[in-house]
Amino acid sequence: MFETALRAIVEETAGGIAAVLMGYDGIAIEQYSQPREGVELQLIAVEYANVLKEIKKTVEILNIGRMEEVSIKTSNFFVVIYTLTDEYFVALTLERDGNFGKGRYLLRREAPRLLQALT
Amino acid sequence: MFETALRAIVEETAGGIAAVLMGYDGIAIEQYSQPREGVELQLIAVEYANVLKEIKKTVEILNIGRMEEVSIKTSNFFVVIYTLTDEYFVALTLERDGNFGKGRYLLRREAPRLLQALT
Repeated sequence: MFETALRAIVEETAGGIAAVLMGYDGIAIEQYSQPREGVELQLIAVEYANVLKEIKKTVEILNIGRMEEVSIKTSNFFVVIYTLTDEYFVALTLERDGNFGKGRYLLRREAPRLLQALT
Repeated sequence: MFETALRAIVEETAGGIAAVLMGYDGIAIEQYSQPREGVELQLIAVEYANVLKEIKKTVEILNIGRMEEVSIKTSNFFVVIYTLTDEYFVALTLERDGNFGKGRYLLRREAPRLLQALT
């Protein structure tokens, strides 16, 4: 159930590398990734959770609404994080020159399916 | 010099609210904002710096390259942050339904001008 949605997100996004459904506690529920060397998904997941917790706190301090989406572009990768509930989120990692817009669209498209499976 | 670039970023982005050029220490060099009630720019600036420092640290831990751009979407606002140097970045806040793509483009377009004025 989870895997179908995660695979769709990764495979339909040009440059998609991996998608992970996880909790803010840093524990992944499910993940799907293209075969690729040198990407330590578990480490990345925990760090995602940490940084997202920090952003969530900031958004609350600033009182600028509920955090929905965070994207981080580095010289090597693009990471798009989409919040599902107060406990869970889904993160997509893609190549720097991957289709960021398509990735965001797919995260939104698959969110209801992931949410339904979660609850 | 700074103000011309910041104003261009805000005014040419549909839904643009404010742009601020600042250091990771949370001290703003220059800012430009549309007249608007209830937005505490100084507080926002400090919090931006904090969250960005956290993301920067994470990107370094994960060894996924140099942080270039971060965007945060909440139920009320869109924030796009573009790194200029190891010390300075520029942040654009726009309405949630503002033109995010245009904002990112303008940040990139004005970055060399801001960089030149910084150094």
